[in-house]
Amino acid sequence: MHKALIVYYSRSGNTKKMAEAIAESIKKENIEVSVQDVKEVSAEQLPAYDAIIMGSPTYYGTMAAELKKLLDDSVVFHGKLEGKIGAAFASSANIGGGNETTILDIINAMLIHGMIVQGDPRGDHYGAVSISAPDERALQQCRRMGSRIAALIKKVSK
Amino acid sequence: MHKALIVYYSRSGNTKKMAEAIAESIKKENIEVSVQDVKEVSAEQLPAYDAIIMGSPTYYGTMAAELKKLLDDSVVFHGKLEGKIGAAFASSANIGGGNETTILDIINAMLIHGMIVQGDPRGDHYGAVSISAPDERALQQCRRMGSRIAALIKKVSK
Amino acid sequence: MHKALIVYYSRSGNTKKMAEAIAESIKKENIEVSVQDVKEVSAEQLPAYDAIIMGSPTYYGTMAAELKKLLDDSVVFHGKLEGKIGAAFASSANIGGGNETTILDIINAMLIHGMIVQGDPRGDHYGAVSISAPDERALQQCRRMGSRIAALIKKVSK
Amino acid sequence: MHKALIVYYSRSGNTKKMAEAIAESIKKENIEVSVQDVKEVSAEQLPAYDAIIMGSPTYYGTMAAELKKLLDDSVVFHGKLEGKIGAAFASSANIGGGNETTILDIINAMLIHGMIVQGDPRGDHYGAVSISAPDERALQQCRRMGSRIAALIKKVSK
Repeated sequence: MHKALIVYYSRSGNTKKMAEAIAESIKKENIEVSVQDVKEVSAEQLPAYDAIIMGSPTYYGTMAAELKKLLDDSVVFHGKLEGKIGAAFASSANIGGGNETTILDIINAMLIHGMIVQGDPRGDHYGAVSISAPDERALQQCRRMGSRIAALIKKVSK
Repeated sequence: MHKALIVYYSRSGNTKKMAEAIAESIKKENIEVSVQDVKEVSAEQLPAYDAIIMGSPTYYGTMAAELKKLLDDSVVFHGKLEGKIGAAFASSANIGGGNETTILDIINAMLIHGMIVQGDPRGDHYGAVSISAPDERALQQCRRMGSRIAALIKKVSK
Repeated sequence: MHKALIVYYSRSGNTKKMAEAIAESIKKENIEVSVQDVKEVSAEQLPAYDAIIMGSPTYYGTMAAELKKLLDDSVVFHGKLEGKIGAAFASSANIGGGNETTILDIINAMLIHGMIVQGDPRGDHYGAVSISAPDERALQQCRRMGSRIAALIKKVSK
Repeated sequence: MHKALIVYYSRSGNTKKMAEAIAESIKKENIEVSVQDVKEVSAEQLPAYDAIIMGSPTYYGTMAAELKKLLDDSVVFHGKLEGKIGAAFASSANIGGGNETTILDIINAMLIHGMIVQGDPRGDHYGAVSISAPDERALQQCRRMGSRIAALIKKVSK
């Protein structure tokens, strides 16, 4: 059975809600999903998953330091995430507030790990974004993102 | 008298409306503003201004080819924009649709020209963004951006 | 038989040489490769390929206007590149000269098309880069990139 | 007297050497410079400076978590860095290894603080970069960056 990890940092609960919406739609595709607060995840756990999805609030245009630390710690097994699926999502206070740069910084890190990333031609292109608390639009983007990730896992991970 | 150029590409009229709102609030500060469609601007005109502000719709995550061509053409006087003020704004169809990457790509080009750029700690941080037609929120961001640019011109350009 | 397109813009010939090195190593994996100057490619041709690889010199931190125009033109069949493989490479005059931003801007556009992108944990992470004329290091990165793309095509495209 | 802070994270000493080269050329312009390891800096100290220059090794395409934490902590005085000068530099193991994205992520954070940033039309455009230990080319870029920052401080900070 394929396994996906969603790891998030969330102070207000907004990013956590997004994580849960993504998880819900991945599960529907019969993929095991673990949703974890970044504080409970150690880098050593990452290689056990077929897909890693990271979510962050937008702090100064990029991911929270806690998520960056998880990435920095992952250097000890650099190369072991190669060929795995990666995806990212973000919440922010404002529309032009850094959501996209946050997501793309996580995606850059995933590319450096040799991971495989796919965009979306219809929905939030780089990954789901929410302005403040996720409204129905944002949750729909999260669910859409979840099913797309599930399809990609099935296509790529044997 | 200080002079600012706002150059935009606009098919739907959305980006043009943003340009006009920015221009209006720069003018209030007694700075001469020229608002031009990119088709009417040649690169040779750029060095005549104290500030250059570029606006684009979001086409595949970055500026329209027409604006990129203006930048490519500007290589003939590379170095002559050094120390001038730069700023960018963008419109897009979706919230997570590439507004920020469009603005930052223009800002990168301005940095490569040696231009001076300032962000905004309260409003749209990198530059004003509009989702589809500019609503009151977006127009207010444009006006705010205009007065901030005017203040920066007065501070930096002697 | 799988088909890949390498489309480049090259004034000095540097980016063209990179294109040829990538093509050479893709061909070794029995994948048909077409190497084309952007001036000879129309957007309508893109959906015929399993993988699209774009190469550009670094002009003001991003791709040449000619490549941007090809992307802008591709909007007429938006959605038809979904699930295809994408990759990018760049040449620049200086080390800190915008190679990475050029590659990532192309990758962003590919994500917006719904394409699939993979990074490299060992070589040039986002895509092959060359400082001025490609030296042996740069050509080796191009060949490495070609074989990785070939492997990804075989994995993803049925 | 104007005051600049250079704050860096350095494990190998490469980024530290760059910091010292930048500091040296700022000092020549009669500006007081403090060069500090990020571990010794608390966010509360930042508003005391006219310019803040941050340097990082390239960890997964962006700044080290330690520097990100300093930025995250700075939210408590958000708005107080407005109008100050910002600049960034980076070292990395490879040429296409994330130097530019590291620098631009720091610059994005500075823009979100409302800081003023200037690029360089001749040298490393976004900020000085070093591939592994800084060679003479990299050190020259650092010194050049230092004198440009000094000139900008004198122009902008009254």
